[in-house]
Amino acid sequence: MKIIVAGGDGFCGWPTALYLSKQGFDVAIIDNLVRREYDVEMDSNSLTPIAPLEERVAKWKEVSGKNIDLYIGDLNDYDFLSQVFEAFKPEAFVHYAEQRSAPYSMIDREHAIYTQSNNVLGTLNVLYAMKAFAPDCHLIKLGTMGEYGTPNIDIEEGWIDIEHKGRKDRMLYPKKPGSFYHLTKVHDSHNIEFACRSWGIRATDLNQGVVYGINIDENDQDPILYNRFDYDGIFGTVLNRFIVQAAKGLPLSVYGKGGQTRGFINIEDTVRCIEIAALNPAERGEFRVFNQMTQYFSVQDLAEKVKKVAEEEGLEVTISHVENPRVEQEEHYFHAVSTRLEDLGLKPHQLTDDVIRRVLKLAMDNIDRLKEDKVMNSPSWK
Amino acid sequence: MKIIVAGGDGFCGWPTALYLSKQGFDVAIIDNLVRREYDVEMDSNSLTPIAPLEERVAKWKEVSGKNIDLYIGDLNDYDFLSQVFEAFKPEAFVHYAEQRSAPYSMIDREHAIYTQSNNVLGTLNVLYAMKAFAPDCHLIKLGTMGEYGTPNIDIEEGWIDIEHKGRKDRMLYPKKPGSFYHLTKVHDSHNIEFACRSWGIRATDLNQGVVYGINIDENDQDPILYNRFDYDGIFGTVLNRFIVQAAKGLPLSVYGKGGQTRGFINIEDTVRCIEIAALNPAERGEFRVFNQMTQYFSVQDLAEKVKKVAEEEGLEVTISHVENPRVEQEEHYFHAVSTRLEDLGLKPHQLTDDVIRRVLKLAMDNIDRLKEDKVMNSPSWK
Repeated sequence: MKIIVAGGDGFCGWPTALYLSKQGFDVAIIDNLVRREYDVEMDSNSLTPIAPLEERVAKWKEVSGKNIDLYIGDLNDYDFLSQVFEAFKPEAFVHYAEQRSAPYSMIDREHAIYTQSNNVLGTLNVLYAMKAFAPDCHLIKLGTMGEYGTPNIDIEEGWIDIEHKGRKDRMLYPKKPGSFYHLTKVHDSHNIEFACRSWGIRATDLNQGVVYGINIDENDQDPILYNRFDYDGIFGTVLNRFIVQAAKGLPLSVYGKGGQTRGFINIEDTVRCIEIAALNPAERGEFRVFNQMTQYFSVQDLAEKVKKVAEEEGLEVTISHVENPRVEQEEHYFHAVSTRLEDLGLKPHQLTDDVIRRVLKLAMDNIDRLKEDKVMNSPSWK
Repeated sequence: MKIIVAGGDGFCGWPTALYLSKQGFDVAIIDNLVRREYDVEMDSNSLTPIAPLEERVAKWKEVSGKNIDLYIGDLNDYDFLSQVFEAFKPEAFVHYAEQRSAPYSMIDREHAIYTQSNNVLGTLNVLYAMKAFAPDCHLIKLGTMGEYGTPNIDIEEGWIDIEHKGRKDRMLYPKKPGSFYHLTKVHDSHNIEFACRSWGIRATDLNQGVVYGINIDENDQDPILYNRFDYDGIFGTVLNRFIVQAAKGLPLSVYGKGGQTRGFINIEDTVRCIEIAALNPAERGEFRVFNQMTQYFSVQDLAEKVKKVAEEEGLEVTISHVENPRVEQEEHYFHAVSTRLEDLGLKPHQLTDDVIRRVLKLAMDNIDRLKEDKVMNSPSWK
């Protein structure tokens, strides 16, 4: 199957491209390399050194014998996107190519505008390109569990059966996201659902939980193939950030009360979920939503898990509660249904001590690269 | 009260500005005059001749003695918008300043991108300007009943109490709109709700039905004050378009089966609803939604109403069913709650034969200005 991984230079996209290539997919990466530019803008970095994308792809060819096509450009450049569709003729389009940090979107007006413009209009271009050049292509779009917010009822997979005043309908699940970034994913979902309904596009919207872990087996074959490791307050996701704090002897910084509960997923499952979606495409006109998460934890739970493992490794660890830069509920109900990917064959990797230990060792090996002043640089939501 | 009417040169905005001025509000108009540019782009026109905005405002001063401030510029120009906020210090901001045609947004990719960018990012700028310069200002934002689509359950006013698996929450009403334009209003609603929740913005989202009627009393005082009268397939709303077809002896063009049922409102009620919202502001942090419609009709109903009145006026009228350019349900359930504005004092004007007759006479008086080839120029949704 010919499959595009847009955003294939990023934290999820790069392992996904390698994994799909290994499984025998014919993979092309689209990327504008902007994730690396955000590092320059923020004066932050990946804790692991990361090779330029061309080197990564060349090394993959060397170790696997498999080719990955590379298209360097921006989804917001429709001429470029059209040329990629015409040249590669994708059967599936995996779309990671969005600005994916909530704090980044909340820095100021310019970053909010950039995030909404980049994500929403870029995805609109993808929909128009599919309509024009590949109407049978399957869009596999990364959304986020954060689209739902923290409702007081169970979170369903994208759609909910509502009975109201004696009548019934299957409705899109109501969304209440917590940042201008998360809002872009809600906007995308609505735009995509409309394109499915009006044009017969086939789409799978993957509402992914917070990802943890760094390298999958394919990354681990050579340092040139290593994945990026974000630990800063803007792009670092919570578990990976706690692990870096533990490795450096910094207190694990829990925002507020720490009762914020979220869905999580191991990056080894992320790549498998994409494969499952690709092998089981949505029907023409179907807008299908899977909740791509396997467990849920509170922020406090995660801090305690990291503390335990780090102490076993001989590190001294404290947990501190810091003022929450976000506007969010710190104690709330959380229950999300996430059975559809398992029904299609996902065998979840649990968050074990060994998983934490593996990331911790990677952090300790690279701790000299840490920019300590970037660990707690999240902007305030207010 | 100091009130801005953004989009004050448009079909709803201009009568609103006059009406509020008459009622004693201190009114400023923001407009970038782009509605007139769309006419040039589409080679369409208003059936009524419309005066330049500066002339309109000067004439209003002459007939009423009241001043309306004018700020010519674009909400997407944040420096401009900031200067307006600093200069005028609004207590309420009525936001009509969006591209408001569904067919226009469906012409092609460029028009979809323009509509989503213009509307969503412009509104984001308004939210940031309110946060920075007027945190107590009340946003009165025009949405559309089209945000809801045609669900099989009753449409509530923005929020719905959901009971699911034994638990309850008050959720945003699920949306399923029918064009890239309608989608922008859904995106706006989500962005605004977030700004209310995070920043304490006060906002009223007015989900307005299809507007009919042309001039209110304030417009009628002088031809220079006349409102625009859109009849084309892009910007003309359905009842006004049927009336023009009747005046010209063209068949009334019902899309498909004609069972499409929508909420409607008289433009005399539109302006009063804005006044009611302004006089009863939302609380700080409140995202309040009113369904701004007073009756509902199917497209077929409206064609028959126009036919009856036009025949009484001696015109020969036929109704034709044409292929529906839109993707929409042509037979469906429709029931929408719209009590909150009436609870605050709205006394609805019904759609009477006299209302139709008044618009019909205006159309007949100006029928020599009709560009007949523009009446049925809607693009296909597919």
